[in-house]
Amino acid sequence: MEHLECIFCQKKYPLNLFNPFCPECREPMLVSYPLKKRKFYHEKSGLEKYLDFLPLNKINQGLSLMEGDTPLLRLNQLGKKLNLSHIFAKNETSNPTHSFKDRGSTVAIQKAVSMGIDRVGTVSTGNMAASTAAFGARSGLKTYVLLKEDISPEKILSTAMYNPLLIKVKGYYGQLFLQSYSLGQKFGIYFMNSVDPFRIEGYKVIGFEIFHQLNKQVPQYIFVPLGSGGHLIGLMRTFQDLKREGFIRSYPTFVGVQPLGCSPLAQAYARKKSKYKRIFKTETIVHAISNPDPPGGNIVLKLMRENKGMIIAVSDREILISQKMLAEEEGILCQPASATTLAGLLKLSKKMKFKTKDKIVLVITGSGLKAMKALESFKLDVHQASLSSLEKTVNSLI
Amino acid sequence: MEHLECIFCQKKYPLNLFNPFCPECREPMLVSYPLKKRKFYHEKSGLEKYLDFLPLNKINQGLSLMEGDTPLLRLNQLGKKLNLSHIFAKNETSNPTHSFKDRGSTVAIQKAVSMGIDRVGTVSTGNMAASTAAFGARSGLKTYVLLKEDISPEKILSTAMYNPLLIKVKGYYGQLFLQSYSLGQKFGIYFMNSVDPFRIEGYKVIGFEIFHQLNKQVPQYIFVPLGSGGHLIGLMRTFQDLKREGFIRSYPTFVGVQPLGCSPLAQAYARKKSKYKRIFKTETIVHAISNPDPPGGNIVLKLMRENKGMIIAVSDREILISQKMLAEEEGILCQPASATTLAGLLKLSKKMKFKTKDKIVLVITGSGLKAMKALESFKLDVHQASLSSLEKTVNSLI
Repeated sequence: MEHLECIFCQKKYPLNLFNPFCPECREPMLVSYPLKKRKFYHEKSGLEKYLDFLPLNKINQGLSLMEGDTPLLRLNQLGKKLNLSHIFAKNETSNPTHSFKDRGSTVAIQKAVSMGIDRVGTVSTGNMAASTAAFGARSGLKTYVLLKEDISPEKILSTAMYNPLLIKVKGYYGQLFLQSYSLGQKFGIYFMNSVDPFRIEGYKVIGFEIFHQLNKQVPQYIFVPLGSGGHLIGLMRTFQDLKREGFIRSYPTFVGVQPLGCSPLAQAYARKKSKYKRIFKTETIVHAISNPDPPGGNIVLKLMRENKGMIIAVSDREILISQKMLAEEEGILCQPASATTLAGLLKLSKKMKFKTKDKIVLVITGSGLKAMKALESFKLDVHQASLSSLEKTVNSLI
Repeated sequence: MEHLECIFCQKKYPLNLFNPFCPECREPMLVSYPLKKRKFYHEKSGLEKYLDFLPLNKINQGLSLMEGDTPLLRLNQLGKKLNLSHIFAKNETSNPTHSFKDRGSTVAIQKAVSMGIDRVGTVSTGNMAASTAAFGARSGLKTYVLLKEDISPEKILSTAMYNPLLIKVKGYYGQLFLQSYSLGQKFGIYFMNSVDPFRIEGYKVIGFEIFHQLNKQVPQYIFVPLGSGGHLIGLMRTFQDLKREGFIRSYPTFVGVQPLGCSPLAQAYARKKSKYKRIFKTETIVHAISNPDPPGGNIVLKLMRENKGMIIAVSDREILISQKMLAEEEGILCQPASATTLAGLLKLSKKMKFKTKDKIVLVITGSGLKAMKALESFKLDVHQASLSSLEKTVNSLI
């Protein structure tokens, strides 16, 4: 029988996909480590390479959208500016729905189908909704997406195209998150939300790819946008797995980056607290990671303490400047949430000294096309010409 | 010395990147076939695998955005509906700027840098502008993008982020296309437009990947959205290369698909003409391939005649239905231009009999996020609930 584990109470409970929270402390539970020795299957493709490290018995390729295998791109021009010769972007925008969420959705969907579940759902307004709906469609599962009441029609469109059942719900979002699980239990809908244990296991694959793309070297720093916590927990578990299996000795320093206007975890970290405090007013344009009550927050704080990680916050202005830099200097158009990583690196490099040879990875979580509204704050500089005046105009711009 | 070749006049001319048109007939010229025996380097990564088949002496990885290696996804649910067991989507939306244009931009940029050119440009309003600007930024080249006068600010945004020089030009677009080359010659700007010979060589890599992903089998049919012609010419050259080098004997049937409201090539093909006639009024929402005067059109017509290809046209309605089907049935959100491929398959399958085992590839050229306006025509079906009524609402949708 499969189990989930509470890393706070250190107890195991039989797997209940519909309610993966600790009965005692109500924290999200994680997949227990297997006892067997694990290895990589490099000759296989997709998730099969990582099968030993995933809580799945086999991979059904028909459910996949061939997510993953995303680029690890060396940022040469930014590197020169910062005097750092090994900055890399792990570009998750190459995934099928153009965000890292596909890594989690694919594993959760595999789990659902292997257990005979035919209804899935999520509480999300952005990347996770689109990703869950895409994988739900691919797999022929009925998919329920619970949305905030005030969401704009444009924001739903790219999710609605996959034809999930969309329900706008009036009321506090944190409450909706909890209620989704009681609905799930009642109606047999597997709500694969942000901290779902199988979704988190899927995020580990991003880390395995980074490790192999760096020729089995451990980066000194990994910067990750930090909202609900699921993504960061997954990436940290990658390197726990690698250490446990003897592939590595050192551990990267993880830097979780939050927007200043919604930074409950950066605040708790700065105050050396083991539990975060829910925030009541958020003020940031970085919606994708603006979670005032992050369900994985306390796990992140615990893992950061145990592994000497850091949590910092950056302003919206710093984020937008970094977003523009990534596009201008390296040709990477990401959403603002992803640019927190570069903003975090720029901020930290004023406070501490990175070594020129440090390997630093920025995880670029989602495409700029996901958040076009945010781009509108940039001033457009467009020149005007007619066919006859064009030569003169071009000449003035040489 | 390198040469370009006119496939109509069958003459070679020394390479002039700034004016790659035949001095006699004014048709676009293509890269000449090399005399040496060519092979694939499977152990290498990115463009290096295909170096023998590309007009480059070496690959500078620092200029790449790690484009390519896109999924070839078997469409199981659509396959069942159509009684075709081997329909595949070649999903080019996974490229760095989420369209196939990156395949061409990367080769053209390699060529530019290898020849010491530091100014590049393009005449485009959509995918090609964004792609050229992204690769220009990545490579530190000054990039000029010439735009139609009536383009909306939203459409420029995703290109402007890479910080190219943007010039809106009043006047006929076809004239602007031609004028870009005289400007290019004058100011040393390499305009890597839609039928640039090096851009076209880059598109061949999509075909090489399809061939290898199908375990070195030739698909019976490849459906490709058809606008200016560059993409289709590149894909057809893939299989010419494979045949020339003895890798294959049979040749796929290419089906170029145009929107009915702008189908100069489908019209010329239907009338068995060897030259297309420019169209004066276009009426389609499928902007990405709406070219009333396609510069590669006559080459496409010639290659289609010689290789038993087909050119067909489909209505905007058929295109939008297919776009929705790809999302709903397979989890692929593409732009309308890409959905012409499925619309073409659906249309053809009413007129001719495909075999169940035919391998059919649809080339999905760009992401649905590129053309969100087009999505707005779909009716959004959103249910409403409050936290207290949610259970009842979900119950009614089970």
